[in-house]
Amino acid sequence: MMNSKTYERITRQRAADLAAAILTKAGFSAAHVSVMAQNMLDAQAQECHSHGLYRLITCSDMAATGLVNLTAEPKLTDHAPAIVKADAQGGNSLLAFDTALDMLTGKASDSGIAALAINNCFHYSALWWEVEQLSKRGFVALAMTPTHPYVAPFGGKEPLFGTNPLAFSWPRPEGEPYTFDFATSAAARGEVEIRSRRGESLPAGWAIDKDGNPTTESERALSGALLPFGGHKGSAISTMIELMAGPLIGDMLSSQTSAPGMNSDKGILHGELVIVFDPKRFGISPDSAETLFRQITDQGARLPSQRRRAARLQSEKDGLLVSSELLADLNRMA
Amino acid sequence: MMNSKTYERITRQRAADLAAAILTKAGFSAAHVSVMAQNMLDAQAQECHSHGLYRLITCSDMAATGLVNLTAEPKLTDHAPAIVKADAQGGNSLLAFDTALDMLTGKASDSGIAALAINNCFHYSALWWEVEQLSKRGFVALAMTPTHPYVAPFGGKEPLFGTNPLAFSWPRPEGEPYTFDFATSAAARGEVEIRSRRGESLPAGWAIDKDGNPTTESERALSGALLPFGGHKGSAISTMIELMAGPLIGDMLSSQTSAPGMNSDKGILHGELVIVFDPKRFGISPDSAETLFRQITDQGARLPSQRRRAARLQSEKDGLLVSSELLADLNRMA
Repeated sequence: MMNSKTYERITRQRAADLAAAILTKAGFSAAHVSVMAQNMLDAQAQECHSHGLYRLITCSDMAATGLVNLTAEPKLTDHAPAIVKADAQGGNSLLAFDTALDMLTGKASDSGIAALAINNCFHYSALWWEVEQLSKRGFVALAMTPTHPYVAPFGGKEPLFGTNPLAFSWPRPEGEPYTFDFATSAAARGEVEIRSRRGESLPAGWAIDKDGNPTTESERALSGALLPFGGHKGSAISTMIELMAGPLIGDMLSSQTSAPGMNSDKGILHGELVIVFDPKRFGISPDSAETLFRQITDQGARLPSQRRRAARLQSEKDGLLVSSELLADLNRMA
Repeated sequence: MMNSKTYERITRQRAADLAAAILTKAGFSAAHVSVMAQNMLDAQAQECHSHGLYRLITCSDMAATGLVNLTAEPKLTDHAPAIVKADAQGGNSLLAFDTALDMLTGKASDSGIAALAINNCFHYSALWWEVEQLSKRGFVALAMTPTHPYVAPFGGKEPLFGTNPLAFSWPRPEGEPYTFDFATSAAARGEVEIRSRRGESLPAGWAIDKDGNPTTESERALSGALLPFGGHKGSAISTMIELMAGPLIGDMLSSQTSAPGMNSDKGILHGELVIVFDPKRFGISPDSAETLFRQITDQGARLPSQRRRAARLQSEKDGLLVSSELLADLNRMA
């Protein structure tokens, strides 16, 4: 992780000040700045560097393109007894999520289960942060979103699915939820881009070239397609995410959108679906869940949240770990 | 698929008569016989042989053990505005599912989303049948259930998770839903058993031996553990299924149960969770879903339901394909 880079630790307050200054200068409204900064600081504290303070640079770049509504005010609709709709109005997804949180958890408490459909949003943030906000309030949550066409279906050769992350969080009595969040592609698109810039090859099974042939060359992968994780099973899960967080909620498929830089005139906005369960309404056996976690860790396997949790504890004590190179960039931008 | 076996086709009525005779003789009540037979006939018609008429033998064997309540009357509870509970009372899961269907779809239509928790049930049937019953009524459905401890978590070495199937179905305008249903283990337990009986080896990545070392020997795999599909991602999904269809609904983990023949005195019953979405309440764009399916098949990739669908159409025309060996056994049992 540390490679040849040097890192230093800064206080959370210093990081918050940098984030507020940079996002405000980029044109985001105070409401957006507040939730975006909280999200990036939490990611940095957990050493998810790709979703941490580094995003201050990409969000500033995005703001400059004019493709995102920086001052959008999400429109909340009490859509059905167990459905909240949040129209992000062309802005970042996080403010829509944050605005909907109280109505969503209220519905989940009333009905036992509830769904939040976020429409017309721009996505840059990891979904684990959202499902953890729900678990911190005592709920079980599942979130999914399409992205842009990067991944070929199993047995196919054209990029069609997004990297389509799936995130899940389960509240635990001692306060730290069990959470996972992963792309349904074999690898993250960003990882392939990084390897391409470094001229590094890819492991087998990550990608195909533009003719549909397996490739380990990162350049060929970027002009071809990523593969889904887990063969036909991962491909099926990715299809489900397209359907549920796309057509079901009246929003876009990955193939109907494009990332900036994809050389397409399609929009960059799409949807997101969050499903929330109130364990208190289901008849939960909380001790059994803890038994399962113990049975996993007792045999030497890890829980997906273990690494992030350890990083967070150290960050709370010693400050946020930031690469010196990134910090120099951020100081310049602020 | 056909191997050296010979197959013949019988009418659906002949198959129904065989199923009714065998299940009734085994002691199942008329209500159980009705839904079990429908399920097995549908599986046979779609050439899912492992969940078709072959199950008449395993269900008869199971009935003889006295471990399943053959005349159980499921108890339905209107548990919360969007939660139905169906206590299977120690009987087969299918009758509990069937009994709950009207209340479940009523709640999904009212609220937009609803969940069915089936408790204290015995499972032998594939989940695709249940989610398709819901899609035939116009709903999107997701179902999951733990099984018994066969699968080690990623990075571990002890069997802990079940093969934990996940099934999803999406209604399509022309009546045939998009459906997938797969084990979250790299391979089905039954497939490893079949290869063990034949003395065949396993592909790499399916299993570990009892010391946690990778093995391609089917015998060693059976005394060791299966592996999850898709590495840490499949392992995380399997964990989610344990949590959601176990502790969340106040029911068992796979590790708290045992299959008959596992040389354990634990019970064979556990739970199941079905989540139902009413697309009409969400704001669906139905054309986009069809666009996605076309984009998948146009590039030569298959939809998971395509093979079963083709088989069903042929079965409707020509009768059900049954192995002659199985048919001889069933004729003897009836």
